[in-house]
Amino acid sequence: MLNRVRSAVAHLVSSGGAPPPGPKSPDQPEATSLLPAAPPEAPRSPPAKAGSGSGSGSGSGSAAPAKTAEARASFSRPTFLQLSPGGLRRADDHAGRAVQSPPDTGRRLPWSTGYAEVINAGKSRHNEDQACCEVVYVEGRRSVSGAPREPSPGQGLCFYYWGLFDGHAGGGAAEMASRLLHRHIREQLKDLVEILQDPSPPPLCLPSTPGTPGSSDPSHLVGPQSCWPSQKEVTHESLVVGAIENAFQLMDEQMAQEQHGHQVEGGCCALVVVYLLGKVYVANAGDSRAIIVRNGEVIPMSQEFTPESERQRLQLLGFLKPELLGGEFTHLEFPRRVQPKELGQRMLYRDQNMTGWAYKKIELEDLRFPLVCGEGKKARVMATIGVTRGLGDHNLKVCSSSLPIKPFLSCFPEVQVYDLTQYEHCPDDVLVLGTDGLWDVTSDGEVAATVDRVLSTYEPNDPSRYTALAQALVLGARGTPRDRGWRLPNNKLGSGDDISVFIIPLGGPGSYS
Amino acid sequence: MLNRVRSAVAHLVSSGGAPPPGPKSPDQPEATSLLPAAPPEAPRSPPAKAGSGSGSGSGSGSAAPAKTAEARASFSRPTFLQLSPGGLRRADDHAGRAVQSPPDTGRRLPWSTGYAEVINAGKSRHNEDQACCEVVYVEGRRSVSGAPREPSPGQGLCFYYWGLFDGHAGGGAAEMASRLLHRHIREQLKDLVEILQDPSPPPLCLPSTPGTPGSSDPSHLVGPQSCWPSQKEVTHESLVVGAIENAFQLMDEQMAQEQHGHQVEGGCCALVVVYLLGKVYVANAGDSRAIIVRNGEVIPMSQEFTPESERQRLQLLGFLKPELLGGEFTHLEFPRRVQPKELGQRMLYRDQNMTGWAYKKIELEDLRFPLVCGEGKKARVMATIGVTRGLGDHNLKVCSSSLPIKPFLSCFPEVQVYDLTQYEHCPDDVLVLGTDGLWDVTSDGEVAATVDRVLSTYEPNDPSRYTALAQALVLGARGTPRDRGWRLPNNKLGSGDDISVFIIPLGGPGSYS
Repeated sequence: MLNRVRSAVAHLVSSGGAPPPGPKSPDQPEATSLLPAAPPEAPRSPPAKAGSGSGSGSGSGSAAPAKTAEARASFSRPTFLQLSPGGLRRADDHAGRAVQSPPDTGRRLPWSTGYAEVINAGKSRHNEDQACCEVVYVEGRRSVSGAPREPSPGQGLCFYYWGLFDGHAGGGAAEMASRLLHRHIREQLKDLVEILQDPSPPPLCLPSTPGTPGSSDPSHLVGPQSCWPSQKEVTHESLVVGAIENAFQLMDEQMAQEQHGHQVEGGCCALVVVYLLGKVYVANAGDSRAIIVRNGEVIPMSQEFTPESERQRLQLLGFLKPELLGGEFTHLEFPRRVQPKELGQRMLYRDQNMTGWAYKKIELEDLRFPLVCGEGKKARVMATIGVTRGLGDHNLKVCSSSLPIKPFLSCFPEVQVYDLTQYEHCPDDVLVLGTDGLWDVTSDGEVAATVDRVLSTYEPNDPSRYTALAQALVLGARGTPRDRGWRLPNNKLGSGDDISVFIIPLGGPGSYS
Repeated sequence: MLNRVRSAVAHLVSSGGAPPPGPKSPDQPEATSLLPAAPPEAPRSPPAKAGSGSGSGSGSGSAAPAKTAEARASFSRPTFLQLSPGGLRRADDHAGRAVQSPPDTGRRLPWSTGYAEVINAGKSRHNEDQACCEVVYVEGRRSVSGAPREPSPGQGLCFYYWGLFDGHAGGGAAEMASRLLHRHIREQLKDLVEILQDPSPPPLCLPSTPGTPGSSDPSHLVGPQSCWPSQKEVTHESLVVGAIENAFQLMDEQMAQEQHGHQVEGGCCALVVVYLLGKVYVANAGDSRAIIVRNGEVIPMSQEFTPESERQRLQLLGFLKPELLGGEFTHLEFPRRVQPKELGQRMLYRDQNMTGWAYKKIELEDLRFPLVCGEGKKARVMATIGVTRGLGDHNLKVCSSSLPIKPFLSCFPEVQVYDLTQYEHCPDDVLVLGTDGLWDVTSDGEVAATVDRVLSTYEPNDPSRYTALAQALVLGARGTPRDRGWRLPNNKLGSGDDISVFIIPLGGPGSYS
């Protein structure tokens, strides 16, 4: 997330005395799970700095908040990399920028997923990307009839899960999301375990509490058949989409409640894939990207959310809630900042309703800074942040101001669904997830060409081919050190950002493992 | 616009004593142009009822407002139909539903455009669709340098213009828009006459007033070259888009200012095509539709704006401005109306951020009527209106309530641009515009098949072929009277709505005239 938050770290509000913890939903994944714990399958990468895991409130006040935040930053890499302390130091080395992948010798990731990452060229102390790959079992919370559920293994649901989290203004939000977001998704799916396995349409109502009197009264269970004909049909697929959407929101709320803790600093983009009952759900909030490469063709599976792509949403919010602009910003867009000498002239502008441009007479309030400004990677909301969706950022303020930016950011992902059963996939068909470090210097077509080039040099049943592909993509985006910079073969600059890539083979669970 | 406004006429606020006229922009087309005037090229269809042109304020109060509104309704058909009084009566006959087209003998429409229309089967007293087809000359308002412009014919711009307006709750808005919207577009383009003909990028600023001191001072003319490099590039095309967008807004504001006049009743969808300097601009606000049929293939040129397609925009507005819901509506969506006995149960819902569905515990305020409800043609905003963009509707209230619906409606069109010069069009390539009366019973593919079937029976240079095609489409959607209804050959019901169709050949101006 290079240059995506200008001076944001310096303006994070430093937490003083610890406030009482906020209210927590009973279903909410425990924040204690944030603490490093030895997972059963592999040793967790240890914190690089002693004291970074300490929960003691550090000094309050605004003195050097940037340094304070930096010192607090957690420093860990994904568990599945199985890094030794020495390996962790190499992964953290900005000079060498060694590409990291799970070891060949360990347990493979589900589906023989490929993964590779590399640290940035120096824009932040640590790699602020995080990743997660899990198989998650969901036990039903209750039966649809409301009767308390007997624990009966085998009646639950499994989903496969991949997540990329691109942090900014610190690594805390990305790390927290990488550890907890899939648990929020699991919580949201608990109510749906029976429903999703029943081919009939989802019931309109669930009883409020399992086992309460009346909840097993059939008259309370209003199924589609008992309603008037105009009832809207709701699909199983849309329930999973709703579960993922709400999980993102609850994850974001949990970050807000724990924003004074040491680890929840900054914010992160989140790109998540859930495979459940034959379908792939790709949820994106931010500027990471997912594409499917199938038979050499590219199928886009996400769109990026930036100040440019969300200009009209942002402007509309500023127009409807002008108090959010604090008298410092105008919701109107101009091709550049208006200068005082241009008062009274007619300048190009557009408002929240317009896709085209027109001329308007410049008035005093047009001299305020525009809510949305800049183009491409330099586009910013409130001159500060270059992405408009993601998790965290609850403390992000406008530079030299107490104006919060969070109201303009959305934690909701766009979810695209891909039915794996609709097409017979071959071993070369893959879903590629990458943070913007990849996509800033690599087009969709170049990725598709690399998929073809790398996979064709491996046997179709060689499970290491997907990690080799992820490494090739990361290396291709990083480049090699030459002429005082990391450069691509065409001598253009490679990406100086953190780069992380998942390659998910589309043969389905177990096909290539 | 069949069934698109439920009981809306009955809830129009009847105007009492005439308020003072609102402020008017000096550039605004004159409201007096609403009065029927003999155009130079053809006699205007006369009003069918004496007194319908009277401007006297009718009785105030709520006694039978529906009848009052109905009696006021203007009754005219497009000028280019050149209808005699007898022809006008036939066009107004719900029993015969004779298809109307411009006469073969008169002057052809520009580009040999084809047109046909038919009245509804009885859902409203008159045909509430209106149409307009014009060649509009735009004289520049001033030179870019700010010097007063010498009248110099030949330096202006011409645009070709087609508009379809589908009225609801009365014919006034559609009629007003059909007479004035192209004039608003002309006004917006006046500033751009020189700029659009100059291949260099548009200037960032125009002087405020022509001929004022300093306005010809070159230092006030900030061109793109003189600005810092990050200035956003604005294209000529986006200026035309902005001009059309602002013209829609000014048309809507003019309707608001004159809402107590006798002719501005109800609202209308607007589908407008502007051809200017090689490009076709299709602007749509409502549920009419435009498609290009090119070499037998369909290219969609518009999307419909309905409570379903705009659900999230509507819900967000209700969420951010709850006062607009008046304590009567909830911004949440449920698959059907929540019943009091379901309090405490968990029911399917979705909010403004969700595309999927989830369960929530039903609380008291969820018993309010949902802001958006229903599906397909039965979808409604506030249980009242089935389209979410268009012009007018300033007096539209929720049934049995004083809650205004207008804040949820947008007058802004979506504008799609098609470059006519990018492809060598043949005489069978056409742009088809139709009100929902056509599209409710006819798919894009069926229209493409009819294009092929009808045009192949005419010589390519026969200019009457496009009117024959429009007639075939209108007849195909209307059907024939059989079994107590208008029926299609497959015995399904034809459209009982007003149906209007333009066929615009894409050979360019003059090619087939």
